[in-house]
Amino acid sequence: MPILVETLGEFAQKRPFDGVTLGFRLHLEPKTAVLIEALMAGGARVIAMGNEGTTQFGTAEVLLDIGCEVLDRPGQGSEATAANLAQIASAEPQLILDNGAELIVACLRNSRVPLGATEETTSGAFRLREEHVGEVGFPVIVINDSPLKAIVENKHGVGESVVDTIGRVTNMSLHKKRVAVYGYGWCGRGIALYAERRGADVTVLELDPTKALEAAMDGFDVADASHVPVDANVVITATGRAGVVDLAAIQQLRDGVLLANAGHIDTEIDVEALEQSAPGVELSQSLTRHELPNGKTVFCIADGKIVNLAAYGGIGNPIEAMDLGLTLQARSLAALVAPDCGLEAGPQPVPAAVNDQIATAMLRSMSQPF
Amino acid sequence: MPILVETLGEFAQKRPFDGVTLGFRLHLEPKTAVLIEALMAGGARVIAMGNEGTTQFGTAEVLLDIGCEVLDRPGQGSEATAANLAQIASAEPQLILDNGAELIVACLRNSRVPLGATEETTSGAFRLREEHVGEVGFPVIVINDSPLKAIVENKHGVGESVVDTIGRVTNMSLHKKRVAVYGYGWCGRGIALYAERRGADVTVLELDPTKALEAAMDGFDVADASHVPVDANVVITATGRAGVVDLAAIQQLRDGVLLANAGHIDTEIDVEALEQSAPGVELSQSLTRHELPNGKTVFCIADGKIVNLAAYGGIGNPIEAMDLGLTLQARSLAALVAPDCGLEAGPQPVPAAVNDQIATAMLRSMSQPF
Amino acid sequence: MPILVETLGEFAQKRPFDGVTLGFRLHLEPKTAVLIEALMAGGARVIAMGNEGTTQFGTAEVLLDIGCEVLDRPGQGSEATAANLAQIASAEPQLILDNGAELIVACLRNSRVPLGATEETTSGAFRLREEHVGEVGFPVIVINDSPLKAIVENKHGVGESVVDTIGRVTNMSLHKKRVAVYGYGWCGRGIALYAERRGADVTVLELDPTKALEAAMDGFDVADASHVPVDANVVITATGRAGVVDLAAIQQLRDGVLLANAGHIDTEIDVEALEQSAPGVELSQSLTRHELPNGKTVFCIADGKIVNLAAYGGIGNPIEAMDLGLTLQARSLAALVAPDCGLEAGPQPVPAAVNDQIATAMLRSMSQPF
Amino acid sequence: MPILVETLGEFAQKRPFDGVTLGFRLHLEPKTAVLIEALMAGGARVIAMGNEGTTQFGTAEVLLDIGCEVLDRPGQGSEATAANLAQIASAEPQLILDNGAELIVACLRNSRVPLGATEETTSGAFRLREEHVGEVGFPVIVINDSPLKAIVENKHGVGESVVDTIGRVTNMSLHKKRVAVYGYGWCGRGIALYAERRGADVTVLELDPTKALEAAMDGFDVADASHVPVDANVVITATGRAGVVDLAAIQQLRDGVLLANAGHIDTEIDVEALEQSAPGVELSQSLTRHELPNGKTVFCIADGKIVNLAAYGGIGNPIEAMDLGLTLQARSLAALVAPDCGLEAGPQPVPAAVNDQIATAMLRSMSQPF
Repeated sequence: MPILVETLGEFAQKRPFDGVTLGFRLHLEPKTAVLIEALMAGGARVIAMGNEGTTQFGTAEVLLDIGCEVLDRPGQGSEATAANLAQIASAEPQLILDNGAELIVACLRNSRVPLGATEETTSGAFRLREEHVGEVGFPVIVINDSPLKAIVENKHGVGESVVDTIGRVTNMSLHKKRVAVYGYGWCGRGIALYAERRGADVTVLELDPTKALEAAMDGFDVADASHVPVDANVVITATGRAGVVDLAAIQQLRDGVLLANAGHIDTEIDVEALEQSAPGVELSQSLTRHELPNGKTVFCIADGKIVNLAAYGGIGNPIEAMDLGLTLQARSLAALVAPDCGLEAGPQPVPAAVNDQIATAMLRSMSQPF
Repeated sequence: MPILVETLGEFAQKRPFDGVTLGFRLHLEPKTAVLIEALMAGGARVIAMGNEGTTQFGTAEVLLDIGCEVLDRPGQGSEATAANLAQIASAEPQLILDNGAELIVACLRNSRVPLGATEETTSGAFRLREEHVGEVGFPVIVINDSPLKAIVENKHGVGESVVDTIGRVTNMSLHKKRVAVYGYGWCGRGIALYAERRGADVTVLELDPTKALEAAMDGFDVADASHVPVDANVVITATGRAGVVDLAAIQQLRDGVLLANAGHIDTEIDVEALEQSAPGVELSQSLTRHELPNGKTVFCIADGKIVNLAAYGGIGNPIEAMDLGLTLQARSLAALVAPDCGLEAGPQPVPAAVNDQIATAMLRSMSQPF
Repeated sequence: MPILVETLGEFAQKRPFDGVTLGFRLHLEPKTAVLIEALMAGGARVIAMGNEGTTQFGTAEVLLDIGCEVLDRPGQGSEATAANLAQIASAEPQLILDNGAELIVACLRNSRVPLGATEETTSGAFRLREEHVGEVGFPVIVINDSPLKAIVENKHGVGESVVDTIGRVTNMSLHKKRVAVYGYGWCGRGIALYAERRGADVTVLELDPTKALEAAMDGFDVADASHVPVDANVVITATGRAGVVDLAAIQQLRDGVLLANAGHIDTEIDVEALEQSAPGVELSQSLTRHELPNGKTVFCIADGKIVNLAAYGGIGNPIEAMDLGLTLQARSLAALVAPDCGLEAGPQPVPAAVNDQIATAMLRSMSQPF
Repeated sequence: MPILVETLGEFAQKRPFDGVTLGFRLHLEPKTAVLIEALMAGGARVIAMGNEGTTQFGTAEVLLDIGCEVLDRPGQGSEATAANLAQIASAEPQLILDNGAELIVACLRNSRVPLGATEETTSGAFRLREEHVGEVGFPVIVINDSPLKAIVENKHGVGESVVDTIGRVTNMSLHKKRVAVYGYGWCGRGIALYAERRGADVTVLELDPTKALEAAMDGFDVADASHVPVDANVVITATGRAGVVDLAAIQQLRDGVLLANAGHIDTEIDVEALEQSAPGVELSQSLTRHELPNGKTVFCIADGKIVNLAAYGGIGNPIEAMDLGLTLQARSLAALVAPDCGLEAGPQPVPAAVNDQIATAMLRSMSQPF
């Protein structure tokens, strides 16, 4: 992770977080541990908890050794979550790094108003905007809204890893297979591109005619999202909406079709209805076969869960995308404590200067003279 | 032009412009004549003038025959422009179609306030926003701001025709040539893409790190715009800014380099300074050779004017991009007279419903089930 | 033409043709004149004639000035051809450069057996192999059989220029147009590739299943050549066989289809039968419209003649492909007079050492470290 | 495996192998078992043994159940090989399916001369041609020489799976990484192509200037194979020759470079010398890190063994390539017993009719109208 390590070096010199207590809630594993290291190198006192059930205790021990206060303990259930959130809040942190906005909410009534927070997810930011209007008296930088993530992580990272994972689970070539992709957002753009690069003929299904025209100019076949792609060998959803492929559609698909979902929610494909109509037989750890009453066979990867993370062999995005995302966290936190911060209260995108700084660092790590 | 012709058919049936007088100012040539036909088929009385010096009088005669009032006369100089603008304004048109905002400005003091106008250019819209704040009491739809134009015309239309024209003027292959593209806006994205598709190695020069990172993820080499691309065989500007390639940069470029500009203004490359330093010898109608005092040779296409229009053999964008642009005009004018128009006064983008309708029509003309 | 000029420099130093008389028959125009210059720089006495009707007399004069004996005179008809061939033969040249094998045949009975010859075309070589078995007592190097020409000229040069020319003649975009390409030889491979790079959906029609499978793995749709591509917007022939698209097929094609031929013979598309059934109306210099009795319209470029050469605006292959082809001539002639020549009598491919030498020079001209 | 299953159906009807004893030596695993099933459905008596140590005994049991005589027993060492070869030979099979030519050699002295054999590998065929000249009195069809395998398996199958495996083992993105590929044969062509499709900048290193020029025209950077690619992040060998990347070259490579081999022999990269100079530390099952005495770090996948098969997570070629290869075996065996076989004795390529038949079947399985 060259750009995060470079940031760590800079923090160790400039000590932007001297005297700052930072509440940290994000998966605790080796890569996020480097982020914590960077924050501590910058002078921060870090009190950390993972998202439920994701903490790797080997990593936690390493963090404890370097002086990070890790609250998670092996064997704890979800009842510990509330207590841990409360414990961090009671430390009245000046900075918060959150993943889902629960820690931010827990700190809203603190007597010492935080200098600011970062929130990893769009859904966490949504929650703050909808349920806590006017309550957030400090800037919250929403990491996932950065255009860098759209390009590096969503288009290229997710696009490539979704298509890879499908190949890995099935050992199937995509040459001259018809692949239907629901949604031409950043993830859909990437999935369509990488499926084509593996030889597939791609149909993009979209609601929005302007995006559909973009897809057509990019060379893909296009259909209205109400159209059922009856000739598809593979159907991939990437819309962010539930019920995109319902049972009625599944029944019309081609015999032998393979279904996979690339969105965060696991209801884009109605696997529950599919299971009720035709209970799945597990072929391998992440692949099930369903024999429909109408005589057709349907294959489904990872029960409709996000395929590049949930499927066996799915290793998520490449390390470079992680490096980018964690450095966005590190640099946004530094922006919040900068003397000339000047950010208004409430959820907001990553400051342009932070995006620019990280884009430049990433270009240099790619040996580009920038 | 299938989608404009389809629109004409619909207008003939629904007669949206019955009783409407329309002032029209745009190049009068065979393609724009189809637009006038469509408006007249929809019931409009059309009073038309071209942009200075661009009127094709064969077309004008055809238009006169079908009842369009054409004001241009052969042999008139620019002094007729003001008179013609005034004459249209005095007809107090309910609708205005403009290219540069002069006709709109001429109608600002009309006693009958127009229902609305369309303005082809971003610069015309800029003029209204800067010089006539608060004076425009009717909606002005700015055609060039449509996302459809960004994709269809700027990225793919301009991108492809710029690279084509360079090949046509020089009969040079781009295989393993180094092509430097200044600017990664929509035009730059297209130029880089089509140069690569002809075998070039492309370097994108950008000021904005986020766009530069997008270019790198798209596979191009990238450099900061202050960098002089000393290994480039071809240098193409597409930034919209003057002085991007100045004489100091030209002197550092590789011996034998070819310069071309794809932006609307003809000062992106400082051809004036180049001419003074090394007067050009014309090799063919659009190609000059300059022998620099430092011993290097520089070739320049069309004296730095917009290459896909100005160079010999440059035929501009493909007909499909024209079809799109003129239908945007036609449908936007219809939106302005619709009973439920509901548009506020002042310059504004093309309504989403119009974009959607035209994107859908274009997809269908491409045989896509949308 | 960097590699031919480099060869000229080497010839001027090494003088491989000192004392050699060379009979030259190839189009006389500025590029082939550089070839003659190179041969003369190498010490050759050159007696030259063009192929019928192609001699550019401005070039001829320049050649006369430098001492080349040019036999063509303005205003001569085809009756002069035989006399000119005889005149060259009577000079008993040691080397022959031919384009169609007529000069080689004229020299077969010479008392001084030539050291060798080069023949530009496959059809000329075919003629020697079929009609003059056992008569050719000297090596004849067949230039067109070089694998370098297959790749550089046929695939990339022809492929790119055929697709370019179609765009230039029609001003039509190929985005999401269906383009049917008959034949997946080297030219067909290139045409399919460059049509796809302009956004077309390509169907390759082939007789040979193995080539068809290669096309499918390259990403194209494929059909048996007996299949009529009824959904094609554009049909391009590149098979080298007559009657590939006959009138019965034309009648089944889509209304508005565009026909073009990329092969050397002008009967791949049966334009004669099309003309008889539906006489063409000329739309522009190279484009005709035919209204079929069945009500459909067909457009045809250059009356089915080889589109990248015959169509208005067609400028043939890029200069780099010419550079390669002419250097193959120059170096093959030098190989024939080398002391260690060792080539057997009769038509044969370009020696591997010559191909290697030129490939290396071309790579260096592309700035590759080879 | 649709085309093998289709072949099985045809065999069951036509019974081409009725009365034929077939000696079978190839890995015994689920996919090759389908081939045996097809041969038995066609009437053959099959006596089978695997290549040493590769037999899957679950599969062997299934084969025994359907009547195939499997000679391998669990726990046997390599001493059983000779006995098993002898046992098959003593059955005097009319047909032989071999992988390495040992079974063919064992049958050379049989009193009943076989009708013919198939040999999977080029190296097996080489052995017959070199060591048994004039001894092979029956046709031996060499499967690996089929042009179908070059395209489907070597270029696209191997190319794609090599690049996939590198990503899987390292979780590294290839965007703007420099990838050096040694060799531009069919495998090298595929590796370069798929590395580029993942965003890499590719340098091809070749000895042969004509192949190098092809690579350059395909868009890759090219260098003479004597050149050390000092800027490469990843180095992949695919030449089939030993010692391509020796220790001296490794020492000059960039700090942090990753080495992988895609050829069948495991000495293309001199891992032995690397190990001696800098013993590897295992990072994961297939990845080692070597700290060179000169201070640089080198990573190596699978100790230089063929990466797409040997590396952890390497799953070999896609199922479609297996389907093709096994059907080539099945159809070639059928061609050997056809009444009009007409094949001469000795090693030879797959008959054109067999290639055509299988290419056609594969095109149909890809839904192409052929």
